[in-house]
Amino acid sequence: MTGPTDNLWEAMSTARTIRRFTDEPVDDATLARCLQAAVWAPSGANYQRWRFLVLRSPEQRQTVAAAAAHALEVIEPVYRMSRPDADDQSRQARNNRATYELHDRAGEFTSVLFAVERLPATPDLLLGGSIFPAVENFLLAARGLGLGACLTSWASYGGEPLLRAAVDLPDDWAFGAHVVIGWPRGNHGPVRRRPMSEVVYLDRWGTAATEITQAVSSADD
Amino acid sequence: MTGPTDNLWEAMSTARTIRRFTDEPVDDATLARCLQAAVWAPSGANYQRWRFLVLRSPEQRQTVAAAAAHALEVIEPVYRMSRPDADDQSRQARNNRATYELHDRAGEFTSVLFAVERLPATPDLLLGGSIFPAVENFLLAARGLGLGACLTSWASYGGEPLLRAAVDLPDDWAFGAHVVIGWPRGNHGPVRRRPMSEVVYLDRWGTAATEITQAVSSADD
Repeated sequence: MTGPTDNLWEAMSTARTIRRFTDEPVDDATLARCLQAAVWAPSGANYQRWRFLVLRSPEQRQTVAAAAAHALEVIEPVYRMSRPDADDQSRQARNNRATYELHDRAGEFTSVLFAVERLPATPDLLLGGSIFPAVENFLLAARGLGLGACLTSWASYGGEPLLRAAVDLPDDWAFGAHVVIGWPRGNHGPVRRRPMSEVVYLDRWGTAATEITQAVSSADD
Repeated sequence: MTGPTDNLWEAMSTARTIRRFTDEPVDDATLARCLQAAVWAPSGANYQRWRFLVLRSPEQRQTVAAAAAHALEVIEPVYRMSRPDADDQSRQARNNRATYELHDRAGEFTSVLFAVERLPATPDLLLGGSIFPAVENFLLAARGLGLGACLTSWASYGGEPLLRAAVDLPDDWAFGAHVVIGWPRGNHGPVRRRPMSEVVYLDRWGTAATEITQAVSSADD
């Protein structure tokens, strides 16, 4: 269940976010397969106005560490999160510990920035449709290969100017996502999601699509 | 190559946009598997502030037809596109013919709207990261099952108010995507994309990541 897989359904249903990584570097062939998957994604009018920046030099990893530290300061109060006591083994403490480790060790791992060109007439939300499908393909490829990955917003908010300056991003380009990759310490496994029946509507807001959501046995997994 | 597949890599590399559909309706079990895949996607902080609206009543398909007609008026001048002559068999004419058919027949097919809740502090581009991974999972599931799908912007621009009113979308929610589905007339097949070597950079904008992009044989497919 948790090893590499070529199965589409297993990959999608077990592509859990990985926040803790081993010290083993990510090899070029693995990274290339993930990037190739990103390039296969759809984009508006198939324009492919995207670039994928691999950050792994010591200098750029320093910048990533600074962006991650900044992000941590921002999310601590939002999520009312603090460093858990060493002996706290509750689920929340374990989750928080993984989140702190991700941010604390950010500069030790390879990051991939997903950049997209802004177009004058395209609203920003719609622009997301020309970069996040590539992000998702990348994450699924990583899952398929057994690689761990974490989608972050480190290249947004206060981290954006840091990373923008560090990679020389042109003014009319924006960062969609910042993904951290590494070999997982811990396991991939079934994703935790709300049941489909709560989020699928038929024809109008709030109208349950019962006949559809009950048509698969895994509907409420 | 073009039939249903459970293989992750085949699904990602052959999930071509389908614009021409047969008259056969999409059954609930197929649609449910695509929606289940959407629900498996990641979202910011795993908040899953999304809803998936299946539009298939005659009234809602009428609204979709109106939104598509509006979208066609907008894109014709942008793409300098006009209805091809019946005897024009050039690749561009065939592409344009499929695009016109998609818009002309929009009201005959099932659509799925992907809605996402706006959050006060979240920039719109980043918000796309909480809905377009679900869109991509949906498209890959459709490809896996042999179903055709087309990601459109009909719920953006001028189509947005039409669809917003028709489905009673709450004010603080936005449409990410409008996907049309149906059984393909024509085939899935390899996607057409720029070579990876042109869009992957190492550490800085414009620096080729040759050692990475050459690490897979399919790098320049």
